Amino acid sequence: MTTDRTRPLHAPRGATAEGPGLFITLEGGDGAGKTTQATLLEEWLRRQGREVVRTREPGGTEVGVRIRDIVLHHRGHIAARAEALLYAADRAHHIETVVQPAIARGAVVIQDRYLDSSVAYQGAGRVLDADDVRALSLWATDGLLPDLTVLLDLDPAAARARLDADDKPFDRLEAEKGEFHARVRAGFLDLARAEPERFLVLDATHQPAALADRVREAVVARLG
Amino acid sequence: MTTDRTRPLHAPRGATAEGPGLFITLEGGDGAGKTTQATLLEEWLRRQGREVVRTREPGGTEVGVRIRDIVLHHRGHIAARAEALLYAADRAHHIETVVQPAIARGAVVIQDRYLDSSVAYQGAGRVLDADDVRALSLWATDGLLPDLTVLLDLDPAAARARLDADDKPFDRLEAEKGEFHARVRAGFLDLARAEPERFLVLDATHQPAALADRVREAVVARLG
Repeated sequence: MTTDRTRPLHAPRGATAEGPGLFITLEGGDGAGKTTQATLLEEWLRRQGREVVRTREPGGTEVGVRIRDIVLHHRGHIAARAEALLYAADRAHHIETVVQPAIARGAVVIQDRYLDSSVAYQGAGRVLDADDVRALSLWATDGLLPDLTVLLDLDPAAARARLDADDKPFDRLEAEKGEFHARVRAGFLDLARAEPERFLVLDATHQPAALADRVREAVVARLG
Repeated sequence: MTTDRTRPLHAPRGATAEGPGLFITLEGGDGAGKTTQATLLEEWLRRQGREVVRTREPGGTEVGVRIRDIVLHHRGHIAARAEALLYAADRAHHIETVVQPAIARGAVVIQDRYLDSSVAYQGAGRVLDADDVRALSLWATDGLLPDLTVLLDLDPAAARARLDADDKPFDRLEAEKGEFHARVRAGFLDLARAEPERFLVLDATHQPAALADRVREAVVARLG
């Protein structure tokens, strides 16, 4: 596996090379508002008559649900490399069986989390090399990169307050310390700086309607 | 991920670099007699006063059992890259939590299947590049290669007859066509030719006791 991010196993290619569809991913910590923005974008696209596929990782397929269950709810230690490989396996199956067919038939795919989450959480947040994790994801997906990645950037303390207010149960990742979430946030911002054309970075403290306007503008530009 | 087998992510290293133990793997198609040889070797080693750890992939850990269940018993298609990544995830967890600690404390690890099975089944038998699958395994295990790999070579038709005689139920891999098993066999033999010092290739039609003698000789030579 190469650690040179400009030369993964296969050259990355945009989804539009495959068909007339669009591949949009939403990234950011839990509590940043990804679900709200995905829903607003989906509603708007449907009003424009577009087919929309909402999906997520991990767990966007039947196989993925079983993988997600291992990664998030296994009691006890999971080796760091095993965890990264499980996420990559989920991704490989999900992209081949859900995302690529949707893009090929012209749908807009709106996905909650993709390879940037793997790099930010596993690479920046844990012990593995971020470039290795990225190369693994690109091998898993045969090089598929999103046409647009919306990063909802939020201070981890603010995100924590939102999640507490929702009274959501903690999973294994959410239970990690605040310092970890700060490293994840920095990892996401580094990724956005490295690929400014793919990323739209938004301040997630702004009103949902204002954020939705910005997302729509970026989508319209890419739908041409 | 590089496709140059002489330069995986980390340089492969023998298990003996980690401690006084020994890492032995058994390879070959189902029905070739791996379990019989593992048992005979284990009994002999225990009589010599050695600690022996018998293990296998997939499924050598609690996490691995769950992964094995997905890979072998999922109803319906699993993307080829996802399958390779699931095997690699099982391997990463198994090597870190079972094999490396055993080697470090001086045990002899006897393992049913390892990276050569992945390369032979996934690489030679399926659609993926064999060097990619090997690089994936080496990343998963931080470069761990066995001190000795015993390949029990058997014509697939003879193996089939043995399995029929045992009336074992077919799993997903066993149910594949005979042509697939012929490609797997050729893949194993190619791997053995590429690393003659690591591999001991045996004709699995010989008597179990005679094969066990050959295995013991190779183990004694490596125990020094």
